[in-house]
Amino acid sequence: MGALSKKIEVVLAMDIGGTYTKIGLVEKDGTIRGKRVFSTGSKHSFPGFVLNLEEEVALLCAKMKDKIKIVAIGIGAPNANCFTGQMEHPPNFKWGDVVPISETISSLYKLPVVIANDANAAAVGELVYGMAKDMKHFVVLTLGTGLGSGIVVDGKLVTGANGMAGELGHVSVDPEGRKCNCGLKGCLETYASVTGIKRTVFELLAELNEESTLRSISYESLTGEIISEQALKGDVIALKAFEITGKLLGSKLADTVAHLDPEAFILSGGLSKAGDILLGPVVRNLEKNLFAAYRGKVKVYLSPTESSDAILGPAALVWQERK
Amino acid sequence: MGALSKKIEVVLAMDIGGTYTKIGLVEKDGTIRGKRVFSTGSKHSFPGFVLNLEEEVALLCAKMKDKIKIVAIGIGAPNANCFTGQMEHPPNFKWGDVVPISETISSLYKLPVVIANDANAAAVGELVYGMAKDMKHFVVLTLGTGLGSGIVVDGKLVTGANGMAGELGHVSVDPEGRKCNCGLKGCLETYASVTGIKRTVFELLAELNEESTLRSISYESLTGEIISEQALKGDVIALKAFEITGKLLGSKLADTVAHLDPEAFILSGGLSKAGDILLGPVVRNLEKNLFAAYRGKVKVYLSPTESSDAILGPAALVWQERK
Repeated sequence: MGALSKKIEVVLAMDIGGTYTKIGLVEKDGTIRGKRVFSTGSKHSFPGFVLNLEEEVALLCAKMKDKIKIVAIGIGAPNANCFTGQMEHPPNFKWGDVVPISETISSLYKLPVVIANDANAAAVGELVYGMAKDMKHFVVLTLGTGLGSGIVVDGKLVTGANGMAGELGHVSVDPEGRKCNCGLKGCLETYASVTGIKRTVFELLAELNEESTLRSISYESLTGEIISEQALKGDVIALKAFEITGKLLGSKLADTVAHLDPEAFILSGGLSKAGDILLGPVVRNLEKNLFAAYRGKVKVYLSPTESSDAILGPAALVWQERK
Repeated sequence: MGALSKKIEVVLAMDIGGTYTKIGLVEKDGTIRGKRVFSTGSKHSFPGFVLNLEEEVALLCAKMKDKIKIVAIGIGAPNANCFTGQMEHPPNFKWGDVVPISETISSLYKLPVVIANDANAAAVGELVYGMAKDMKHFVVLTLGTGLGSGIVVDGKLVTGANGMAGELGHVSVDPEGRKCNCGLKGCLETYASVTGIKRTVFELLAELNEESTLRSISYESLTGEIISEQALKGDVIALKAFEITGKLLGSKLADTVAHLDPEAFILSGGLSKAGDILLGPVVRNLEKNLFAAYRGKVKVYLSPTESSDAILGPAALVWQERK
């Protein structure tokens, strides 16, 4: 013991979001040895982000420098390509078309980096530390500003031929539907995400005459939490918005089942915090649209993982490779 | 040589279709050592089929009994579940709800059986002997009476949690659309299959006034070959039917890309024999509906495999496991 005691091996995990970046030190068994959150500054420069990141990592490690050994870095980031290590055309960032995130951070710390898009990392997080520990075939959906997804087949993340598998946010609900940031129309994420349900609320406010607290809130001020709260209080517009969102999401997920025959879907992200108000219509409409052979076999869960523990996904990317 | 020469190891391969059953003896390298075709009798009894099969297998093996050693049996059959070894609710068969095909044939010949649904077997056939030899991520679509599919990820057939992955015939084109044999409405196979294009032709004959040779043919007499022939001759209705079919198929395949990021689709089966008349609108509408990251990256091929060589798929199921 004492001077001879071995250092604790950890992964430096980073979850880079459009608004916040979360960093943390995670042991192989998922124990979190400290975490921090800071503003990503996605509308500013990439070098500015890297400077902030360095400071935050220094603060994170300051107290336990002598006790830990960082074995590698795990990164989850929007539109990150696991093959190239780059963020490719991230629509909500002003860091350039192609951001060499993996290379930059690897040479900064002289450590190996494993990277995946944020939703793919979340899927591996559920597989290694979360509710999918005993599953081999499942799909994670992150319902936040957009809709991200990660697909696991035979206990392994599906990366695809170009490292870009699992973009369920961009399956088509209606080719003549809502304009999507990606340039297409009617993509699933324009309906089934926090932004999507906001759009649905505003459509309903225009269409219906029902009284609603939501009539006093601007588009910019409206959040997913407000819609959830009002739905729980019985607001007709909010409830109908969840019903429509759940219906579209559930019926599209039936197509995903016809591809993959998964045992479960795991919903995470802001919109999933609404609980049964969302889950009810999703499950009902999924079942209704399933091909006979799948009926009654696919489960839909809400992930209990807290948003502040989003670093578990990127950490799992590394630890899964070192099993 | 002579008495000491080693017997040739072959797989007894069976492709059981709604109309015809094809059987053959296939070496590991794909060499076919004889094949036969006979009527399946799917509207008669299962024991009757088994009796016919026994006779046909005896005839197939008669001449080379002393030269070959059958190491195992590979079977491709509609709605076959690779986990249970049963055909489950095959809509075009009157053999019962659950047909114990694997067990029956295995005990008949005292040989191990590997089984998969026919389109999944076709996908493994393309992987082992066909045009996907150098691919790791692709999807095979069999466009026949229905639409079957087999998905390969990381060089392995995706079976799913219940052995039923890859039912792209039942993704939804229009939840209020054409009635499907499966009980749902608007499934892809009600549009993109030989039956689907027949339905489209009849819709167009009703809707439009253009002259067409197809006006003289009954629904029952109309075949995919006739529609292809007439399209090649410039028949307006036939051409428009292919345009609509290709458009719906191409745009739905964009959803499949958003799931799997495959390098290619391989189209086979009766409808694929139409060639460029089908391929053109499929490719155009696939590209048009692709999420930006995938554009220009996904290929669509027509399989050159002859229908009489459909036994290569079931044979590949066995040989792939014995690599």
